[in-house]
Amino acid sequence: MIRVLVWNEFNHEQKKEAIRKIYPNGIHNVIADFLRCDDIEVRTATLFDKNLEISDPTCGITKEILDQTDVLIWWGHMGHQYVPDEVAYLVRDAVLSGMGLICLHSAHHSKPFRYLLGTSCNLTWRESGDSERLWVIEPSHPITRGIDRSFKLDAEETYGEPFVIPTPDRLLLIGNYSSGEVFRSGCLYCRGNGKIFYFQPGHETFPTYYVPEVQTIIRNAVRFLAPTYREMTPCPNVRKVDDPKGYVI
Amino acid sequence: MIRVLVWNEFNHEQKKEAIRKIYPNGIHNVIADFLRCDDIEVRTATLFDKNLEISDPTCGITKEILDQTDVLIWWGHMGHQYVPDEVAYLVRDAVLSGMGLICLHSAHHSKPFRYLLGTSCNLTWRESGDSERLWVIEPSHPITRGIDRSFKLDAEETYGEPFVIPTPDRLLLIGNYSSGEVFRSGCLYCRGNGKIFYFQPGHETFPTYYVPEVQTIIRNAVRFLAPTYREMTPCPNVRKVDDPKGYVI
Amino acid sequence: MIRVLVWNEFNHEQKKEAIRKIYPNGIHNVIADFLRCDDIEVRTATLFDKNLEISDPTCGITKEILDQTDVLIWWGHMGHQYVPDEVAYLVRDAVLSGMGLICLHSAHHSKPFRYLLGTSCNLTWRESGDSERLWVIEPSHPITRGIDRSFKLDAEETYGEPFVIPTPDRLLLIGNYSSGEVFRSGCLYCRGNGKIFYFQPGHETFPTYYVPEVQTIIRNAVRFLAPTYREMTPCPNVRKVDDPKGYVI
Amino acid sequence: MIRVLVWNEFNHEQKKEAIRKIYPNGIHNVIADFLRCDDIEVRTATLFDKNLEISDPTCGITKEILDQTDVLIWWGHMGHQYVPDEVAYLVRDAVLSGMGLICLHSAHHSKPFRYLLGTSCNLTWRESGDSERLWVIEPSHPITRGIDRSFKLDAEETYGEPFVIPTPDRLLLIGNYSSGEVFRSGCLYCRGNGKIFYFQPGHETFPTYYVPEVQTIIRNAVRFLAPTYREMTPCPNVRKVDDPKGYVI
Repeated sequence: MIRVLVWNEFNHEQKKEAIRKIYPNGIHNVIADFLRCDDIEVRTATLFDKNLEISDPTCGITKEILDQTDVLIWWGHMGHQYVPDEVAYLVRDAVLSGMGLICLHSAHHSKPFRYLLGTSCNLTWRESGDSERLWVIEPSHPITRGIDRSFKLDAEETYGEPFVIPTPDRLLLIGNYSSGEVFRSGCLYCRGNGKIFYFQPGHETFPTYYVPEVQTIIRNAVRFLAPTYREMTPCPNVRKVDDPKGYVI
Repeated sequence: MIRVLVWNEFNHEQKKEAIRKIYPNGIHNVIADFLRCDDIEVRTATLFDKNLEISDPTCGITKEILDQTDVLIWWGHMGHQYVPDEVAYLVRDAVLSGMGLICLHSAHHSKPFRYLLGTSCNLTWRESGDSERLWVIEPSHPITRGIDRSFKLDAEETYGEPFVIPTPDRLLLIGNYSSGEVFRSGCLYCRGNGKIFYFQPGHETFPTYYVPEVQTIIRNAVRFLAPTYREMTPCPNVRKVDDPKGYVI
Repeated sequence: MIRVLVWNEFNHEQKKEAIRKIYPNGIHNVIADFLRCDDIEVRTATLFDKNLEISDPTCGITKEILDQTDVLIWWGHMGHQYVPDEVAYLVRDAVLSGMGLICLHSAHHSKPFRYLLGTSCNLTWRESGDSERLWVIEPSHPITRGIDRSFKLDAEETYGEPFVIPTPDRLLLIGNYSSGEVFRSGCLYCRGNGKIFYFQPGHETFPTYYVPEVQTIIRNAVRFLAPTYREMTPCPNVRKVDDPKGYVI
Repeated sequence: MIRVLVWNEFNHEQKKEAIRKIYPNGIHNVIADFLRCDDIEVRTATLFDKNLEISDPTCGITKEILDQTDVLIWWGHMGHQYVPDEVAYLVRDAVLSGMGLICLHSAHHSKPFRYLLGTSCNLTWRESGDSERLWVIEPSHPITRGIDRSFKLDAEETYGEPFVIPTPDRLLLIGNYSSGEVFRSGCLYCRGNGKIFYFQPGHETFPTYYVPEVQTIIRNAVRFLAPTYREMTPCPNVRKVDDPKGYVI
């Protein structure tokens, strides 16, 4: 059983009527609902509570919770700065010890993503009602399994290059927009003992997370990122060359 | 002084009136002309001679000529199979010893490119009169220096993903087309002691090599790929650990 | 069930008494024996038959056989040139369509490995009775699972850098020798829809393939390289942007 | 003229007699002295002043100073935690905008290195009086130019794998130690518009920075990392596809 935690800022969906209509229980619950199945169990956590306050300073992220999480999914946008550094460090360390991390859409600027990649993760952007077509670059990769050579989203926020990230270990998807921009929309990284997948679609004003291909890719990614090894690699003073300390699995 | 050899199939330009109007002396001479400058000297070679015959079985490529070449530029399309394997191997070995290789447009299927990368280099394609916009992914790279965040070609053959290549060492440019395809249009590789740059624009029916940005990118690539080290790394039986044989520069 | 084909030159074991004592039925049968288990079935093929002749010009490799093979293991040394190019191309195309390929020891110079990687795959070497210690670089990778931070081989042929290969997608193991050389001993590549793993240990004069850690790594690699997707990506003329031709899985 | 800033903790050299004998004016001044030449000018900065106090809370690193620095060289060991986060962020942002960063020896755990790479940068270590031999993996790279296939340091602190770093863009050197450990000793990264080079030799108790090959590699790295482009890539709201804002060079 793969244990997923879906983390969501849960801000726009409560504040704006038009967005609430798309995601009445929040983006996190839509993602949780399509993920739940025989081999995936899902919990959720949010930054803002139902009074639109940050009542839990841990944001629902503790070391104990992360220890019980195989894959963490992160959606954030305007509230990145309200996530304490300590929480972001917990997420970073969990990834380095093996946990999978899927960062969606504007989570490109979230603390966990930036701290793990080290760059600014800047990009160019525009809200213009563009449609987007996503192209599969690696058709044999488990994350793109079941997707045709491309699929279309009727509306998405336009993200454009340069996207200031380290060269991905594997570039799985490139998106392009009706007004002509392109973007590295599916980027896979190994960091420490864990894996990170950045997936661009999912602006809050569009029903992107109801699109079957988007759901398939996120579900595939959950299965691909779920760790079979979970341990923080230490920094030991080894006494001699065949000192096995710390690395026997 | 950087010594460039521009190799061209020189087939379409002689056979078809419409193409001859664009490149009356062949694509190779247009490229040679815009490259020649204080620090770059250029020679050319072609597969077909002016009688549209293959009069020189070496295709103008000998070991002696490659030894005097810093960067080889290759344009080929319908005549890949007429290039003898022996010639392709000479090019491959020259790259492994340090020579730069720039493969343009349909040279994705040329023997030197395929033999050096090892994959099929297949892609999807369509001649539909699309316009193309090329996007800079790495603005600080010497090859994209002087280019805005994007530039437009009024017409190009459409190339699409999946492009079956090894993950590029650096992906410098992504192109997208007015009908919605995307393509990894600028791909940089290190192989042995040499560098390879694949650059997608340049279908023979359009005046692509007259476009200033295309010329700038090819000129930048020539300077970036020109080797300062040129030696085939051997496979020696070294007698002891500090045997310096073969690797002193 | 993973279907493995172990291919061996089967030359040294028949010609030299000392080597025959170590591998009386050939290296291929030792590898086949330790691999066979509930989820792995194994066939073998050799270059030389039991009369030390090449009686089968296909070397036991046909398209039909490769179509029924999930992972091909290749051991070759002095007979690389007797493998016809056509056979090497069949292997290359099978890998590009998804088949796994494990190249052992001196198969660094085999045709399938060189044709798929494109470089000379040269290295430095010495037969000096060195012992070797292999170090795990990526402890969480499925191929190194179950291995301590290092393990020792009492004797191996010394391989040294520079090893003229493309930068591996992942470097999993580094070996070092008692006389002081180092070598990138476990190198993983994605090429097309397939994966390639180069693993350096296995000189014919030493009982390397009886070492438990070596067996574990090869078995892990078989499981990691076994494809779930198998299809040659074509080079189609697609009629329009949403033409799904050829890429539906 | 390349402008180098050598930053040193300057702790051990002042505290311990044996180390002071090796580096009487500090490690930074030895590095500065061998770097200064016709095309390289060098300044220095330290964490501890000559009273062994941290009198300057900026550690000698301000935005103005970094704006005037092409390549920053960093040596730190026991005082990483005294470098304020704000200073580390300034260094990170300078690298992302194009500045080169060379991290030496125990700077693998320095804040600028860890924040830019995102991983723990843990390793294994031992002070055992090992000698070390460093092997050139990429003989044609500008940073290894002029170095034989290997060179030896009579004594170094032993660093071992696993070294928890992202896969280097290029692995240039591997070190091995007389007791049998190996280490990725020369690792090159591109991050944003800048480059980072990690180089392992340089424990304070040994005269490593007087070794000609070590000096050659650091000097080569300074020239290779010196930027020709210097600009922080922003995160702009671009109004339309051909809005050139922010990316004209």
